[in-house]
This record gives sequence, structure tokens and C-alpha cells, in this order.
Amino acid sequence: MTAPPRLAGVLAPVLTPFGTDLAPDAARLVRLCRWLLAHGCAALAPFGTTSEANSLSVDERERLLDALLDGGIDPGRLMPGTGCCALPDTVRLTAQAVRRGCAGVLMLPPFYYKGVSDDGLFRGFAETIERVGDDRLRVYLYHIPPVAQVGIGPALVERLLRAYPRVIAGMKDSSGDLENTRTMLTGFAKQGFDVFVGSEKFLLANLREGGVGCITATGNVNAAAIDRLFREWRSPEAERLQEAVNGIRGAIEKVPVIPALKAIVAHHAADPAWATVRPPLVALAPAAREALLADLAALGFAMPGLRG
Amino acid sequence: MTAPPRLAGVLAPVLTPFGTDLAPDAARLVRLCRWLLAHGCAALAPFGTTSEANSLSVDERERLLDALLDGGIDPGRLMPGTGCCALPDTVRLTAQAVRRGCAGVLMLPPFYYKGVSDDGLFRGFAETIERVGDDRLRVYLYHIPPVAQVGIGPALVERLLRAYPRVIAGMKDSSGDLENTRTMLTGFAKQGFDVFVGSEKFLLANLREGGVGCITATGNVNAAAIDRLFREWRSPEAERLQEAVNGIRGAIEKVPVIPALKAIVAHHAADPAWATVRPPLVALAPAAREALLADLAALGFAMPGLRG
Repeated sequence: MTAPPRLAGVLAPVLTPFGTDLAPDAARLVRLCRWLLAHGCAALAPFGTTSEANSLSVDERERLLDALLDGGIDPGRLMPGTGCCALPDTVRLTAQAVRRGCAGVLMLPPFYYKGVSDDGLFRGFAETIERVGDDRLRVYLYHIPPVAQVGIGPALVERLLRAYPRVIAGMKDSSGDLENTRTMLTGFAKQGFDVFVGSEKFLLANLREGGVGCITATGNVNAAAIDRLFREWRSPEAERLQEAVNGIRGAIEKVPVIPALKAIVAHHAADPAWATVRPPLVALAPAAREALLADLAALGFAMPGLRG
Repeated sequence: MTAPPRLAGVLAPVLTPFGTDLAPDAARLVRLCRWLLAHGCAALAPFGTTSEANSLSVDERERLLDALLDGGIDPGRLMPGTGCCALPDTVRLTAQAVRRGCAGVLMLPPFYYKGVSDDGLFRGFAETIERVGDDRLRVYLYHIPPVAQVGIGPALVERLLRAYPRVIAGMKDSSGDLENTRTMLTGFAKQGFDVFVGSEKFLLANLREGGVGCITATGNVNAAAIDRLFREWRSPEAERLQEAVNGIRGAIEKVPVIPALKAIVAHHAADPAWATVRPPLVALAPAAREALLADLAALGFAMPGLRG
């Protein structure tokens, strides 16, 4: 069995389109994925936080991943989110991803119970890895304490790397804390532990210190510019490229980010249904949406070729 | 259609037994439920936080509820937990509970996204109620900010009661904050909104101010004594009964409560497999278990008739 390709660059946690009945729409998801892979995304991380993945049932997630692969998306460019609160759900989604040849999975810790021990979290990851039982499995640990509240610290990473050196492939660090990213890089990057930051704001710093890319919400709309920063980070232009992507992100972060991204896609795809979010999220109010689109237009923002 | 019976008194969020392979064991669950209903529990709230419900798949929860009812547990004495992160999961579990005649359901808000608006939470509850679409549905809102982080405040309760006055039946308040319980009681008890506290520590206070009972982790092991307090809360003995149940709870709360309760049941049922918990929890270490059992023995604690 050949080792799966290592992922690097800009990944989008792909938005999940819903119909007005709140059912997921696989066809529109495949279209967005194709567009993203052609416009700056090295790979895709469907079923992340930005994808409203935890607002989807396990059946829905399984069907959508099948639809992506049946729709021709290269599994070597996929890192689907598979970490759930319940062990059987995490095992089921992870096994499907490996069986279908995905390059890796992005794994949240079980996030309902708070203040759990590293022993308990280790047990959860280990039990999942053992039950999936496939040499091809590559796990990227998903550290996002602002949302999951349950984090993945360096002691746990060290223990997992010791137990499963081939399986534990890296981390998405969405702590928003560059010091935490540095701890992961200095501690583990030399062992082949690939660190992605969770925002392009930290992309240049991450690449300079040994990281491999970013998995970022705004990769859904601005991947080409972020990818240019990724490719040219050693050039004299790097700081300017970083500032440019920060400007776009700043405009989007003025409002709730997931509804904002869906409003942007709805506008540029000329497909209003894209704005639909599942509860507990709510769509942007019309005034907020118009202000956001105007801010982005003033920054020269565009999504060429998304329409149709 | 007759209105379902109103619930009051002591409810246990029933522990979920696992085999050593971590699979749920329906037969042992039915046995514990029968014992609890015969030893102080007015009703049962399976699939709560103490039940490790969010560590179970939706399929597992559905099968276990079917097993309880097929095993002869009276649905009029059941308030299963049904609130999940994903709307279709909440709808599916709630519809099953109503279809099978359960007296009510205990509903967590979707708990993955943090800092969500009351608009978004209202939308989640309303969409669930509309999709279930059954007059017999009675929803008890589950407010447990220390764990879920996402809470259910008075403005949201008021809005839900206005929109669904027959469906919204009450709350389990696990805030651990008696002031919050008072806000709910003074605001809504007169409209028939039944407030259960999430710990027997607050039972006497809750009953004195218009509440109807408690849904408490320790109801799994000490329901008879808590029920005596419930029945005799107007007697001169009430303060002493409150102190006695507080003493037992204090001994248990010295260690993580769910593993502690499972260790207690394992010991008194002479069934060591009961101690098994799913990740991310871990079982008590032997020394902690022995200390706990000794503390309880010193307080005269027993679970008569649980063995065999």
C-alpha cells in the first residue's frame, strides 16, 4: 500500500449548501468544491466548523462525502472532518474516509463533556484509530478551543505521536494564538507533524516557522489570494500579500463568519439559496449583507467563474 | 387525545451500561430502570448528561429507548433526552419519544457553536417542534451552561412559551445557580412551566418557591432518600432530610461524578462491568473507588435489592 500524499497549502472547510427545506444539496456542494480546487485550494476539508458539520446527521455527512467522490473530486485532495461526540460516529465517518482513499481526516475531540482529562481524550483517539484499523489512516488533530472548548494540548500530541507515529499526521490549530502554534511547531514539526493554522492571518508566520499551510473559513471565497501568499511567502511581496488577505478577512469578520461566507457565495454564484444556514445559526439580515458586499467590492473582491 | 401526565418528584438521568467492548447493554439498563422506579424515582430521564447520551450514536439511543419500552417501562414515566447538535437527530429522537407515548422529552440546545443568538436557538426549537408536529409533545428545556456552554435564558423561554404554550412544559435547570432557578420560577411557574433543579442540593429551595422536583445524577443511587425529602418537604424534618442527601452527594462529588456513580452501581449490583465508561470519560482508579465506597459506607449508604 502506498502512503497517501501529504497535504500542504490552502484548504477550505467547505460550506454546506442547504435547500430552503434545510436539506443538504450535494450537487451544489460538488460544484463549489470543483471551483475551489480550480481557484487556489490545494485540498478541501469538508465537514469542518465552517461547513456546519455538527449540524448535520452522520447519515447526511456520509452521503455528502460519497457524493463528492462519486462526483469526481480527487480523494487525495480531501481531509474531511470526522470527529464527533460519540465514538461510533467518529469511527464510522473515519472508516468511510479511509476506505474511499481520502488523504487524511480532520478530527475534533469529543466536545460535549468539559474539563475531561488527557487520559480520556487519548482513549478516544486511540480507540478510534484501533477500530478503524487501517494503515492508510492519517489523522489531523483539530484544536479549536474557542468553539469546542475541549482542546488538544502538547502533552496529548506527544503521547499520540508516540503511540501512533504514522497515523498522527498533523494539526489544524484554530486557537488563534500564535504562541500555541509555535509550541506545536517547535515540539513536533521535525517528526513530520504538519501544522496548519486555522486562519490566513497567521499563514506567513506559520510558514516562516515550519508550518505547511492553513485551513481557513475564508478559503471558501478568497483561496486564490491566500494561495498566492502560500506560494510566494519567501518573496519580498509576502508582507503585502499578507496584508491584502487580512483586509478581505477583516471585512468578513465584522459579521458572523459562516452566514457572511454563505451570503458572499450566494451573491457571486447568483444563487440566493446558498445563503441558507441551519439552526442554531441565522442568515445575515439584508442590511448587513449589503454592507458586507459593498465593503468587499471596494476592496476589489471577486469570485470569477463561480456563476453558472 | 388525552394530555400526557405531568411529571414531578425525583427523576434519574439513568446511567448507560456498557460491555467491556463499550457497546450499550439494554438488558442491564432495563434492570436498573425497574429498580429505580421501585426505589424512589417518580420517573426517569434516560439519555441525559449522566447517561453519557452524547457519547452514544442516534441509532444506539433509538434502540435503547425501544428496549426500555419493550421491556415494560411505563412511557408515562419517561422523559428521554433528545437534544442533539444536528436538527435531524433531535427531530428523529423526539418523534420516536412522542410516538411511543413518553410523558416528555428533555431537550438540550444545539451545543457545538458558541455565542449563538436567541433567534438561532428559537429557530432550532421551533423547527423541531414543527417537524415533530404532534400535540402530545411536551418539551422540558435543558439548561446546563457548565457543560453545554450554550444556555437557555428567560427571554428565550418567554418567546418559546408564547409560541408553543402547550408544548413547552418546563425546564431542567442545571446552572447550579439558585438565582437563575428563581428567575424561571417567578417568571413562568404560574403559566404551568414546571421547574426541576439539576441537583438535590437545591430541591428544598426549589419546592418552597414553586418548583416541582429534581432531575439529578445521584438519583441513580440515592433516589429513595431524595424522594423522602420531596414528599416531606413541608414537615419539620425537611432541613434534616436535605442535609442527609447533601452528605451523600458531597461524598460522591469528591471525584468525577459519572464514573463514581457507575462504580457505586457496579459495587452494589455485584456487577463489575457497570463501571465501564465511554471515552472521553475514564473509570475511577481503584484507590479512588475504594475511598468513595468507604465514605458512603460510613454514611450508612445502601442500595437494597439491586443485586441479582
